[in-house]
Amino acid sequence: MSEHSTGAPPVEQDQDTYVVGVDYGTLSGRAVVVRVRDGAQLGTAVTPYAHEVMERELAPTGAALPPDWALQVPQDYVAVLKESVPAALAASGVDPSRVVGIATDFTACTVLPVLADGTPLCEVEGFEDRPHAYVKLWKHHAAQSHADRINELAHARGESWIGRYGGKISSEWEYAKALQLLEEDREVYDRMDAWVEAADWIVWQLCGSYVRNACTAGYKGIYQDGQYPSRDYLAALHPDFASFAEDKLDATIGQLGERAGGLTAEAAAWTGLPEGIAVAVGNVDAHVTAPAAQAVGPGQMVAIMGTSTCHVMNSDVLAEVDGMCGVVEGGISPGAYGYEAGQSGVGDIFGWFVRSQVPASYEAAAQAAGQDVHEHLTSLAAAQEVGQHGLVVLDWHNGNRSVLVDHSLSGVVVGQTLQTQPEDTYRALLEATAFGTRTIVEAFEAAGVAVTELVVAGGLLKNPLLMQIYADVCRRPLSLLDVDQGPALGSAIHAAVAAGEYPDVHAASAAMGKVVRGAYTPDPARADAYDELFAEYTLLHDYFGRGGNDVMKRLRALRTRAHGARTPDAVVVDEVEAAVR
Amino acid sequence: MSEHSTGAPPVEQDQDTYVVGVDYGTLSGRAVVVRVRDGAQLGTAVTPYAHEVMERELAPTGAALPPDWALQVPQDYVAVLKESVPAALAASGVDPSRVVGIATDFTACTVLPVLADGTPLCEVEGFEDRPHAYVKLWKHHAAQSHADRINELAHARGESWIGRYGGKISSEWEYAKALQLLEEDREVYDRMDAWVEAADWIVWQLCGSYVRNACTAGYKGIYQDGQYPSRDYLAALHPDFASFAEDKLDATIGQLGERAGGLTAEAAAWTGLPEGIAVAVGNVDAHVTAPAAQAVGPGQMVAIMGTSTCHVMNSDVLAEVDGMCGVVEGGISPGAYGYEAGQSGVGDIFGWFVRSQVPASYEAAAQAAGQDVHEHLTSLAAAQEVGQHGLVVLDWHNGNRSVLVDHSLSGVVVGQTLQTQPEDTYRALLEATAFGTRTIVEAFEAAGVAVTELVVAGGLLKNPLLMQIYADVCRRPLSLLDVDQGPALGSAIHAAVAAGEYPDVHAASAAMGKVVRGAYTPDPARADAYDELFAEYTLLHDYFGRGGNDVMKRLRALRTRAHGARTPDAVVVDEVEAAVR
Repeated sequence: MSEHSTGAPPVEQDQDTYVVGVDYGTLSGRAVVVRVRDGAQLGTAVTPYAHEVMERELAPTGAALPPDWALQVPQDYVAVLKESVPAALAASGVDPSRVVGIATDFTACTVLPVLADGTPLCEVEGFEDRPHAYVKLWKHHAAQSHADRINELAHARGESWIGRYGGKISSEWEYAKALQLLEEDREVYDRMDAWVEAADWIVWQLCGSYVRNACTAGYKGIYQDGQYPSRDYLAALHPDFASFAEDKLDATIGQLGERAGGLTAEAAAWTGLPEGIAVAVGNVDAHVTAPAAQAVGPGQMVAIMGTSTCHVMNSDVLAEVDGMCGVVEGGISPGAYGYEAGQSGVGDIFGWFVRSQVPASYEAAAQAAGQDVHEHLTSLAAAQEVGQHGLVVLDWHNGNRSVLVDHSLSGVVVGQTLQTQPEDTYRALLEATAFGTRTIVEAFEAAGVAVTELVVAGGLLKNPLLMQIYADVCRRPLSLLDVDQGPALGSAIHAAVAAGEYPDVHAASAAMGKVVRGAYTPDPARADAYDELFAEYTLLHDYFGRGGNDVMKRLRALRTRAHGARTPDAVVVDEVEAAVR
Repeated sequence: MSEHSTGAPPVEQDQDTYVVGVDYGTLSGRAVVVRVRDGAQLGTAVTPYAHEVMERELAPTGAALPPDWALQVPQDYVAVLKESVPAALAASGVDPSRVVGIATDFTACTVLPVLADGTPLCEVEGFEDRPHAYVKLWKHHAAQSHADRINELAHARGESWIGRYGGKISSEWEYAKALQLLEEDREVYDRMDAWVEAADWIVWQLCGSYVRNACTAGYKGIYQDGQYPSRDYLAALHPDFASFAEDKLDATIGQLGERAGGLTAEAAAWTGLPEGIAVAVGNVDAHVTAPAAQAVGPGQMVAIMGTSTCHVMNSDVLAEVDGMCGVVEGGISPGAYGYEAGQSGVGDIFGWFVRSQVPASYEAAAQAAGQDVHEHLTSLAAAQEVGQHGLVVLDWHNGNRSVLVDHSLSGVVVGQTLQTQPEDTYRALLEATAFGTRTIVEAFEAAGVAVTELVVAGGLLKNPLLMQIYADVCRRPLSLLDVDQGPALGSAIHAAVAAGEYPDVHAASAAMGKVVRGAYTPDPARADAYDELFAEYTLLHDYFGRGGNDVMKRLRALRTRAHGARTPDAVVVDEVEAAVR
């Protein structure tokens, strides 16, 4: 008689416990059911956000939004819990009673104004048609002028924290977006009780309490060494901003991997998970990917390459790196200095190119070859020698996060001729993003923070030409995350830690993470040729990005003037007037 | 009984005489039959060149050509005489016996090596597979390094003639192309008896004698004040180049509008025209357009806008204008200083953009609207305010003729974002070419050569948005050539002068030319906004074009290296080897 003939489940399955990781991206949320023992992914489901990203108009009213806005609707996030978690559970075949924890990760800085009980302002009667009452997505870039003031003042006053952010606070982060809110819709600002990261808001929905995660508090909330920027500093930005941090930001800080609370009955009903199981402290999609790729050791830089790229890396050295997004103690995992840098446009740029600059003949050829247009362009571009296209591109179509931290920058193409073909420009765009990554790596090394390994995660690792270009341009072997849903796995790792299944994130990462080391290696001849192109990139980078010619800022101002850009207030007023007529 | 009942033709028709103008363009030749009395065009026909432009391979052998080459086949030009002249005559209904003269105009500098009897080297046995034996079209840009040496040496030696060419001899002209020939295919160079402008070669075919026209001799052949560059100068370029001018260039000079000879029996048979009628001295398509547009007075600048733009203008002032193509006494019409400047890519750039950067959705929308893609993009772009697209472009996709005179330059786009649409870039390209024209106009005025009127000719005058942009950018009213085939009419005017029907080109122009004055006027508000964009253009123009950053030259060198560019000799050797195998 075999062990299995008793009718009881096999021993392994009997002992196994499971966790759920939920990854909130830019356009959808994904739930994954993961086995605690080995990180195996057993079921997954995706829920697209019903309102997607509101960039041109406010979906509920149809009111036009000014340039550079990007809003979302919070109930779209809750829908992921209601739809994808049960669906992933069903797909996994796992008995929900064996699930011991749930954890989430989110885009950041994605932030919303809420009442004291967590109700988003956009759900409060009378505020539904106010753009500022909605979630400001990470890529809302309309607060650049506010960020400029924040930075200027920080440097003028010699604020100690500014060096922790590469000398620049991004327009994407909590302060710039809040200052824009204060100055453009005072009523929403005054009414909100908290300015909450979506990463924490979703945890609040799951466990019923507001715990502010150490990661976004540090990187996006300027929370350093236990303190926010001073009242004096904030008052100098705007008199009514003096108490912003204490009134709107301050909350209990939770470390990554800690338990924020137990799953509420309501959230248990949404998700089909047992009430009371561990809900982990919130986290950020990029940072949570590091443990998924077994890359939480010092010097292991993880590049999460999707629409944009985030670079995260632990180090045992504290330093001020030029143009990094930030360094936060415990920002990636407790006990190390977590560094973050980023490129604000990567896959978004390739997608924009394919949508708006590739002629019908290429679409037809791709179709005939059974490829999508990206694959077709990639195969054409892969046949080229380095430099053959004669182009160099600045990859700033969505601004520059690192090392310039300036969203008013824009893209440049140099070298076009009447012979330039779409595959030429496509390859030059791929290369430009690799140059952007090399610029970041060099900034770290110049500051004495060693980068020992490049690990790539995110959807773009599936493009072999792109990966080879990164290896050649950066002159480093590339390791690859070996799982499709890195952030969701990373969240699952945190859920396992929060549930007490592993002693810490490092141990859970070693057991549950997935990586292929040295998947691409640089070719010396190509790397030499890329050194020449990178020198051209750097020259243009510094000319356009460091004040040699501020044409991009002036073009942006001219564009805004020509659009006759209206403030959100004006939009609201127009809408009201239109309704009255 | 009426006057007509006698059966004799009406008096006017009986008295009327006619001329034929033949315009040789980049891709085809066009013949027009014109009434001498009033310039009325009565019949026209076009013959495309069978071999078009050979840019990637030598058509007769299929051998690959290196980058930047552009060759043509001389018999394609003769085919125009055989086909289009009889066809135009037939279409006009004019009795051939009433035709009193024929004149031609050509692209320039388009030049070929010939034997003493005018036989092109590419028609000589054993030379058919030698790229250097063919016609080098104006846009053959592979002699830039030779032009660089020509210029460097001229400045080093303080040659007096260099100032007559804006300080730079173009790689497109007779000397650079010949020096390339000497150094890359010595056998062809030694064998040729003359290095002939196609403008003169076609006249040679018509009248049997080689008369070198004053226009190309001056503008392209550095013939100034009755002299070519000295033997000493030429020897310093290359010892074997010392006698180039006296051996390969020197010939009888003919003034524009003069009779070069009488139509030979052979050419009469080709064309169906009477033997012995006047054949005018050769001319250039751009220059011949000035009389067609009644614009031979001082300060009347004619912009002939097609694939590229040529600017021609008579003046009574002799000055050295920065970056002009040249000033030649009698270069446009006898008795005035004829100035020439140019933009090497205009319509070519718009065409390249539509071919290679416009997605299928735009083609579909254009089709649905009953427009071609240019019209569709123009209508979308026309709805924009100045500066709304946020872009500035350098229009150097085919190099820069004036004022930088540098074909190693290339195109630049600054300001791209993920919101940039095809119509944005299209409009920015239109504007860039207008900025290029303004740069040229300002260079003339800065040198004390007044520009009193802008007259537009060429196919692009049919785009009303483009014309309005030129008026706004240049802050000047635009006059338009009021006839479809300006150069052919201009040639016809010269035929009438050569036949003695008018005393001079000015008188013939006044009677036969066609123009609408003040067709577009500038809008002050748009002109103000364009002043800002033009300032950005100028800043980038000088940075990339005047040594601030020679990235374009380095990219071009890298491109050539990556292509593993072979010299024509190597191509020939490969071909021979391939034939032996």
